Amino acid sequence: MPAARPSNSRATINDVAARAGVSRGTVSRVLNAEAYVSDSARAAVEAAILEVGYVRNEAARGLVTRRSQAVGLIVHEPHSLFLEDPNIGSILLGINSALSEADYQLVSLVVDSDRDSDRVAGYITGGFVDGVVIISARAHDPIGRAVAAAGIPAAYVGHPIDVEGVPYAGIDNYSAALAITRRLVATGRRRIGMIAAGLDRDSGQDRLAGFTEALGPSFRKELVVEVPLYSHGCGLDGMRLLLDTDPEIDGVFASSDAIAAGALDVLREAGRSVPGDVGVVGFDDSAWALRTQPPLSTVHQPAGELGRRAAELVLAQLRGEDVGLGGSFLDTSIVWRTSA
Amino acid sequence: MPAARPSNSRATINDVAARAGVSRGTVSRVLNAEAYVSDSARAAVEAAILEVGYVRNEAARGLVTRRSQAVGLIVHEPHSLFLEDPNIGSILLGINSALSEADYQLVSLVVDSDRDSDRVAGYITGGFVDGVVIISARAHDPIGRAVAAAGIPAAYVGHPIDVEGVPYAGIDNYSAALAITRRLVATGRRRIGMIAAGLDRDSGQDRLAGFTEALGPSFRKELVVEVPLYSHGCGLDGMRLLLDTDPEIDGVFASSDAIAAGALDVLREAGRSVPGDVGVVGFDDSAWALRTQPPLSTVHQPAGELGRRAAELVLAQLRGEDVGLGGSFLDTSIVWRTSA
Repeated sequence: MPAARPSNSRATINDVAARAGVSRGTVSRVLNAEAYVSDSARAAVEAAILEVGYVRNEAARGLVTRRSQAVGLIVHEPHSLFLEDPNIGSILLGINSALSEADYQLVSLVVDSDRDSDRVAGYITGGFVDGVVIISARAHDPIGRAVAAAGIPAAYVGHPIDVEGVPYAGIDNYSAALAITRRLVATGRRRIGMIAAGLDRDSGQDRLAGFTEALGPSFRKELVVEVPLYSHGCGLDGMRLLLDTDPEIDGVFASSDAIAAGALDVLREAGRSVPGDVGVVGFDDSAWALRTQPPLSTVHQPAGELGRRAAELVLAQLRGEDVGLGGSFLDTSIVWRTSA
Repeated sequence: MPAARPSNSRATINDVAARAGVSRGTVSRVLNAEAYVSDSARAAVEAAILEVGYVRNEAARGLVTRRSQAVGLIVHEPHSLFLEDPNIGSILLGINSALSEADYQLVSLVVDSDRDSDRVAGYITGGFVDGVVIISARAHDPIGRAVAAAGIPAAYVGHPIDVEGVPYAGIDNYSAALAITRRLVATGRRRIGMIAAGLDRDSGQDRLAGFTEALGPSFRKELVVEVPLYSHGCGLDGMRLLLDTDPEIDGVFASSDAIAAGALDVLREAGRSVPGDVGVVGFDDSAWALRTQPPLSTVHQPAGELGRRAAELVLAQLRGEDVGLGGSFLDTSIVWRTSA
């Protein structure tokens, strides 16, 4: 490896030509894989590129064509959660698969603080990406507003509450929550609580609304505990609160599989059998659902396909197509295992 | 949100000036936050920017300064694993924290196929990032070689086997594996196996070497099973193989916490008590270690600090400092819980 050099003294094409003892034009022909370059000249240029540490400036080429050939991905979760949530991982792989087929580079941008948020907004609107996919956007998000103001091709996974007329791919969280709660009620549970997360965006609000509707007159407000994140840790906290509120609780709708996994750990510690004493259902059908003891009854959502659909909405805009400004809903299903 | 427009017809500064009814110079003064712009002109320009969807081309500014103000992160794992491994998440947050303080944008690049690998190599050497952090590099990796050939400021987390003279931050995997295996032996176990992963890079090879050394004459080659990934799924496969090979096995060194979690699931299904029948130890002290039943005895590695150190090695090179070409080792420790 050549000695590291600061990027502001990067080698130029002239340095390569001088080292190789050929003309600038010959270097250019080698770089552009054109014909009419002798094997010996090609070898000399390739060696010189390594020796002087020449970096071809694709950013300069991008400037000419006004294309970075990259699409950004923004996930509005603390990055620690982003990285432990296999559901988001599946969405990401779906996005990457669609972009890769179209020869676009997926660029994931970390948002871990307000400082990150401002810098990422600047990066996105600064010409470094041609489009953006946004996951789990919250209300009043500065990045979403920067993207909207700049008119960059964008699509959401899920539907942000306060941004209208944006293309998105999502699921019907309300109907899915309604269906799985009804199924839980049908097992004979009478004191059913919910660990609700993400109430600052559509997914959390809609899951709570579906749960409320399913219980009807037997809905008890005090058996809904709100936690900030769809995480295992929040599942621990939420289940402890529910047990404190009603030690006789016999059913729990956890608003994600990770939350359900935390709830199961607390129930085990408290000596409650699942599904004997308490029936627990989750949401996502992510890798968590098969790892818990017992395996989770949950809502399956097509995470990879959601990512792919959102990426395709961005790619269509990049091709100049009109994708409309509404949403595209994908089907969910109930997967009934043994936790309820 | 303005109607999406393909990026090759992005609005220019002239479009903004025309819409606002001001000169190009006035637009430029507003964009550069200069004085001597009337409030009404400023308001007109700001409204026009939103109306025409003008995106300031920071890539063009980057070209002048030869800086993208971004650092790339490459993780050589299938992305599905990248996203379920909390240890990698901690490394990533450490990197982001150091870069964010220096006002650099962290850009994570997905490598999920050979096609991705080639495109990412082109992206990195194309001027879109000023430097690169590389995690879990394998032998003969095309991206690592592209980075080395281009002379871009780079640092590794861990030490690639076939690349010499690259700055890196790592741990002493050999000594850590030696220490925890000795501790397992000291609990009285006599038939100890290992689920070894990542043998195509330093971490896997060194952990196996430490294990072998610790057992000395009681090392039994048939009780080492090789699995490809540091994942829960590979832990399931590995533990099943070990039980088939020796149903009397009484100790297991799992080369990551995720592998240990899989091994515990298989032992539970097989009716073996842990630590009663079998003692199990892991490696990482990631979030997995506290979630398993029972909690894992494992090697703690300072994942966040490893990421921070690697990022600092890149930032120092970007400042033009000579960081040397060797490695920096951080301390590990044994955390003894109840799985062994």
